[in-house]
Amino acid sequence: MAGQEGRLTYRGYDIADLAAHASFEEVAFLLWHGRLPNTAELDSTRRDMAAQRSLPGQLIDSLRAVPHNAWPMDVVRTGVSSLSQYVPPRPDGTHVSDVAAAMRLTAATATIVAAFDRVRRDLEPVAPRADLTHAANFLYMKNGEVPSETAARALDVYFVLLADHGFNASTFAARVTASTWADMYAAATSAVATLQGDLHGGAPGKVMKMILDIGDPAKAEAYVRALLDKGDRVMGIGHREYKVRDPRAEPLERMARDLGTSGGNPQYYAVARRLEDVAVQVLNEKKPGRRLYANVEFYTAPTLYALGIEPDMFTCMFACSRMAGWTAHIMEQMKDNRLIRPQVDYTGLVGLPWVSIERR
Amino acid sequence: MAGQEGRLTYRGYDIADLAAHASFEEVAFLLWHGRLPNTAELDSTRRDMAAQRSLPGQLIDSLRAVPHNAWPMDVVRTGVSSLSQYVPPRPDGTHVSDVAAAMRLTAATATIVAAFDRVRRDLEPVAPRADLTHAANFLYMKNGEVPSETAARALDVYFVLLADHGFNASTFAARVTASTWADMYAAATSAVATLQGDLHGGAPGKVMKMILDIGDPAKAEAYVRALLDKGDRVMGIGHREYKVRDPRAEPLERMARDLGTSGGNPQYYAVARRLEDVAVQVLNEKKPGRRLYANVEFYTAPTLYALGIEPDMFTCMFACSRMAGWTAHIMEQMKDNRLIRPQVDYTGLVGLPWVSIERR
Repeated sequence: MAGQEGRLTYRGYDIADLAAHASFEEVAFLLWHGRLPNTAELDSTRRDMAAQRSLPGQLIDSLRAVPHNAWPMDVVRTGVSSLSQYVPPRPDGTHVSDVAAAMRLTAATATIVAAFDRVRRDLEPVAPRADLTHAANFLYMKNGEVPSETAARALDVYFVLLADHGFNASTFAARVTASTWADMYAAATSAVATLQGDLHGGAPGKVMKMILDIGDPAKAEAYVRALLDKGDRVMGIGHREYKVRDPRAEPLERMARDLGTSGGNPQYYAVARRLEDVAVQVLNEKKPGRRLYANVEFYTAPTLYALGIEPDMFTCMFACSRMAGWTAHIMEQMKDNRLIRPQVDYTGLVGLPWVSIERR
Repeated sequence: MAGQEGRLTYRGYDIADLAAHASFEEVAFLLWHGRLPNTAELDSTRRDMAAQRSLPGQLIDSLRAVPHNAWPMDVVRTGVSSLSQYVPPRPDGTHVSDVAAAMRLTAATATIVAAFDRVRRDLEPVAPRADLTHAANFLYMKNGEVPSETAARALDVYFVLLADHGFNASTFAARVTASTWADMYAAATSAVATLQGDLHGGAPGKVMKMILDIGDPAKAEAYVRALLDKGDRVMGIGHREYKVRDPRAEPLERMARDLGTSGGNPQYYAVARRLEDVAVQVLNEKKPGRRLYANVEFYTAPTLYALGIEPDMFTCMFACSRMAGWTAHIMEQMKDNRLIRPQVDYTGLVGLPWVSIERR
């Protein structure tokens, strides 16, 4: 990842090539093994991941018992954490943290998300199907019917684009956890917990709220000016690392446009397109020379919305994809580990004498 | 915390003063507010924390459904994560992260630990009592009877000693999570996930296993030599920060000795005492000049064991105490936040051309 140039690669392969040619399962193999699979390896990865989709009955029951107004990322974090309860621990209390565990976490996270999506709508969870791709099966579990090829491939590309991104905060949290010799389930839970913040994976839902609030491209500029006058941020614009446009924005933008057109709802993309333009322009007026552009969250919003995902579930979709990258980083951390524990200087008071409570 | 001198302070107060004079509730107030409470403040902290001890029925049911052989820290991590499901989210999906939330997390973690401790022994969870201290109530919920004053105060001192420790790995993970604007429940979950590794909070259970394996002080030296010859570590000896004896080791050692004597089981302390001496001696023989000493995990083991805690629950007890420190750090991080996201250099391959799968 090179933020100045706006390039993103996974294990040396350009994200544009992967979005054009690879499936999510292929990218997961690439991240876990460091090279692209051959046909037999991809087949067995698909099969092995598909075999890991089902959840224990107790976990489904727990999801059913969750209040319907619970925040989806709280539920997904808890569900991911709970997966290890059903894996008998080794004598030292840890679980094997290998590619099989990575497959389990990646496959089961999608099932947890789809199950809670239904449960909170008072629908029964739909059992996964092993003959569908990871992306197609997700939409099947969510909707109870096999999706169109267009929808399945769009979600597949989304999963490819979000699967890894260097040392972002959630990946770093996963590595901090793994560095204590905690296992992959524990480290993946830290990652999910960290993803949900608005400065990381929590933004796309807020982008969609803006798009829905604006409703019409002609109203975008006034909306942005009012927002900035209040001192608020325009969510989805700007990135800590990229000083040019996020390389994932373009394929997402294309998908948002195509899905909007084919689904008969072109207005969300139209608002988003106009919103990016005016946000960049107005932010530049306020602070000339600053180079801000749409980041990955921005066009994630109209893309996922066009696929029927509700805005408060967007971050959960991010987690489904990024689980492949997190688990790859966790395995890398474990291979050559050193405890991550920063040295800090305490700047508060020292040497305070104890004072008995009556004299305080 | 000053590792070279072996001093540990909380907000300026020496750990020895706090262990001698303060209760866990008093220390929690100190960590959360930055100063010691007066009588009225301590009373209301006790009352408010006690009011936060009960768990929702669905959470108790989830704990009942967990396989009895699940690793306790996996269950506690999941239980802590689940607490936010029962707090209605704000429109942005977060939960209020204030002292009240810190009290809820600290109080409820103890109830989760005690409930699973009973459930896995096929016993019904015992509802908390509001008239007992945090430490006494924990032992009451675990055993179904009010503990002796000696036992309650010993656990109280343990909770005081473990409540904070600078930027250890779990606290750092909590801060990374909070730095994305995730909330206190998410950040606390990362912390619990990170604590369980053997290089952090996972060690005391292994120390107890050594003590039980050795059984007799006379056998300690041969055991240590055999262990080191195999290339294994002596758990509980040495600390990344302290180059002298961990300041928490002494009060814990005293408690382990006193509880062993009063409970009629002096042998565990006797083995531990001899084990520390021979481990330090043998490790120095192997690498002269190295200064290694018992760390906090070491005398935690015979102390908690004397209180009737099973070794695989030791790390959960650590979490009960450290929750006070984690939540204090999370509030500090949120007050003056900047996203924690390290810059790293990618050293792998770049610019790889896409190769179609038939040609791999």
